[in-house]
Amino acid sequence: MLTREHAVALDAADPLAHWRDEFVISDQALVYLDGSSLGMMPRRTVARLQHVMQEEWANGLIRSWVHWLDLSQRVGDRLATLIGARPGEVVVHDSTTINLYQLVDAACALRPDRRVIAIDPADFPTDRYVVDGIASARGLQVRDDFDRLDDVAVMVRSVVDYRTAAVTDVAGETARAEAAGAIALWDLSHAAGVLAIDLTAAGVQLAVGCTYKYLNGGPGSPAFSFVAGDLQLTLPQPIWGWFAQTDQFEMGGTFAPQPDIRRVLLGTPSILALAAAEEGIAIAIDAGIDSIESKARAITGFALELCDELGLASSTPRHPAGRGGHVAVQHPSARRLVDELAERNVIADFRTPDIVRVGCSPLTTRFTDVFDGLTALHALVHPSKGCSTSPGSGVW
Amino acid sequence: MLTREHAVALDAADPLAHWRDEFVISDQALVYLDGSSLGMMPRRTVARLQHVMQEEWANGLIRSWVHWLDLSQRVGDRLATLIGARPGEVVVHDSTTINLYQLVDAACALRPDRRVIAIDPADFPTDRYVVDGIASARGLQVRDDFDRLDDVAVMVRSVVDYRTAAVTDVAGETARAEAAGAIALWDLSHAAGVLAIDLTAAGVQLAVGCTYKYLNGGPGSPAFSFVAGDLQLTLPQPIWGWFAQTDQFEMGGTFAPQPDIRRVLLGTPSILALAAAEEGIAIAIDAGIDSIESKARAITGFALELCDELGLASSTPRHPAGRGGHVAVQHPSARRLVDELAERNVIADFRTPDIVRVGCSPLTTRFTDVFDGLTALHALVHPSKGCSTSPGSGVW
Repeated sequence: MLTREHAVALDAADPLAHWRDEFVISDQALVYLDGSSLGMMPRRTVARLQHVMQEEWANGLIRSWVHWLDLSQRVGDRLATLIGARPGEVVVHDSTTINLYQLVDAACALRPDRRVIAIDPADFPTDRYVVDGIASARGLQVRDDFDRLDDVAVMVRSVVDYRTAAVTDVAGETARAEAAGAIALWDLSHAAGVLAIDLTAAGVQLAVGCTYKYLNGGPGSPAFSFVAGDLQLTLPQPIWGWFAQTDQFEMGGTFAPQPDIRRVLLGTPSILALAAAEEGIAIAIDAGIDSIESKARAITGFALELCDELGLASSTPRHPAGRGGHVAVQHPSARRLVDELAERNVIADFRTPDIVRVGCSPLTTRFTDVFDGLTALHALVHPSKGCSTSPGSGVW
Repeated sequence: MLTREHAVALDAADPLAHWRDEFVISDQALVYLDGSSLGMMPRRTVARLQHVMQEEWANGLIRSWVHWLDLSQRVGDRLATLIGARPGEVVVHDSTTINLYQLVDAACALRPDRRVIAIDPADFPTDRYVVDGIASARGLQVRDDFDRLDDVAVMVRSVVDYRTAAVTDVAGETARAEAAGAIALWDLSHAAGVLAIDLTAAGVQLAVGCTYKYLNGGPGSPAFSFVAGDLQLTLPQPIWGWFAQTDQFEMGGTFAPQPDIRRVLLGTPSILALAAAEEGIAIAIDAGIDSIESKARAITGFALELCDELGLASSTPRHPAGRGGHVAVQHPSARRLVDELAERNVIADFRTPDIVRVGCSPLTTRFTDVFDGLTALHALVHPSKGCSTSPGSGVW
């Protein structure tokens, strides 16, 4: 039987435990199981933004654009090391929605004879909406499964399912798409910063993702676009913006996109947002993505074991390599339970229709958070049995 | 003959002069004539961002989305008061490039029988590139003038020319477009926060603009979209993102955009960037847009008078109501002159092919800045005559 002492011992033995001190956390009693939606704030982000504000904006003013102009690329190159991309294959900019729009549309243009975009109807809403919008504009058909790909232009998929945390076989499915003449486009939003993704090894050509979850970039921090080097010269991006332009400040009359990853850039990026994203990315690099992945597997494994003991149902895969950094607990009253947990200082996500999403962000989530959160949930689900293990009962 | 004493007297009599103290300016000797590219940093922005970081992100974490979710609208409603829009007609989000893309494409979809987009070839590059990209995707023709509008779907124009500062007759040209069955779309980037625009009175239906120039929102701060109320229900936006979705967190399977201005929203916005934009917008509201416009006319008038006296050529309109907040000084060596001015602590913009752009941002630019900057420029252009009036000569 797992006890809180087990959780305390696991925290004591956790080689990443000290990274939590690198984040601003005023309430150590808060059980935060939502780094999968919004990561905590790194201490270094505060110092960085103060520097950007005072030294770069207030003092440097327009002269600071010398340093800012390639910030999307520089932050992209750092992020690249976390997802197995090469330098010059990633830029950090805009939002997942926009980046997805741009790359899905570009991929459709690369397969003009194909009339189908394939996407899982259970994929994240903005992914499906973007695909539906492009299909509507281009007169394409949206297919709800990936069984047949020989008439598919683009297959849009998430590496980690935002509800179940199930990991898709990126290399296998990319190869299957390629063999069928389709382009695979991966959304790494729930994978980047928690799993050691290797886009190069998997033969991926196009990917997007966000930085405000496991990468701790801040609320609404900019997303990223990945375009494999060999595709960059021919990618027909739909939005022609001046940050993609060769010799941008010559302000030439004809759009001549950069012959590299910069061609997917659009308008002027928020420097405050980019700087914050860079600090979140940097802390993951410093901690090491392999260590982060190891802890993700261990702590989600602990969560699943605890779910089993407490009789909480979960649709999250049992094989450690088969899941991302969160655990889905299923209950018909999930929406109410998440609200009641919040009243008890336990923060988790509700995801329709019946999921309490327990996010385990390796740099900030403690094994004791998982223990306290799940036992609190169990106490709400089974009030009569729960009193001996619920938070605040003093039994631990 | 204008002397520095005149400038000093004008600053002393300037009712807006004290607003400069509301900005973080460590080098009072810096002659900053580039608020038309990047506005200075308001003091209140520092406090606001510290609050957003510490209280909202670090402490509130995911719970702060309750306050953040409608921030694009709330900031938009404040900005609306500066451009003569009604509440619910403006949202602050993404970049001018993206917002322009979305609204131009939507306008084209509203005029499916028309095959032409009209734009001035001298308009700002990103506007032209975006239009060229949409024309390419939709198989439309781009026309370089506005003489004939009876076959035009969308006419894209800037309220203030980014080079000459010439103001277009927004009401007149919007009415002419409407009479011809075309849709007028206005870019307010070089007008918002410096001129008292009245979009409602001018009958404008669609507009975009940026907040990092005269609105002092910070480097790359989010842009805005304006859609007149009566057009909102039928606007067919091309990018279907989850921030436009009705009952967003129900994560429904079918895109059902909000029946209001929120339908042009896209992905998750950067809260840091939005908060900074709000403070910049707020300071303009507090100072009063009519006072700001009055000072813009006075200080650019002073600049033009000085240009005449110093023999500096300018293409900026002489009639006060005919120009925005900057003055274009023309010289074949403009690029070199801007660099040489910077070495003398005078910051202006170079704009191809031959313009030294002198930005006069009413809340931060002093009449003495204009005097010192233009006399420094004159000294560089006419080194033999310039020594008696160049900065540092001690004559003033």
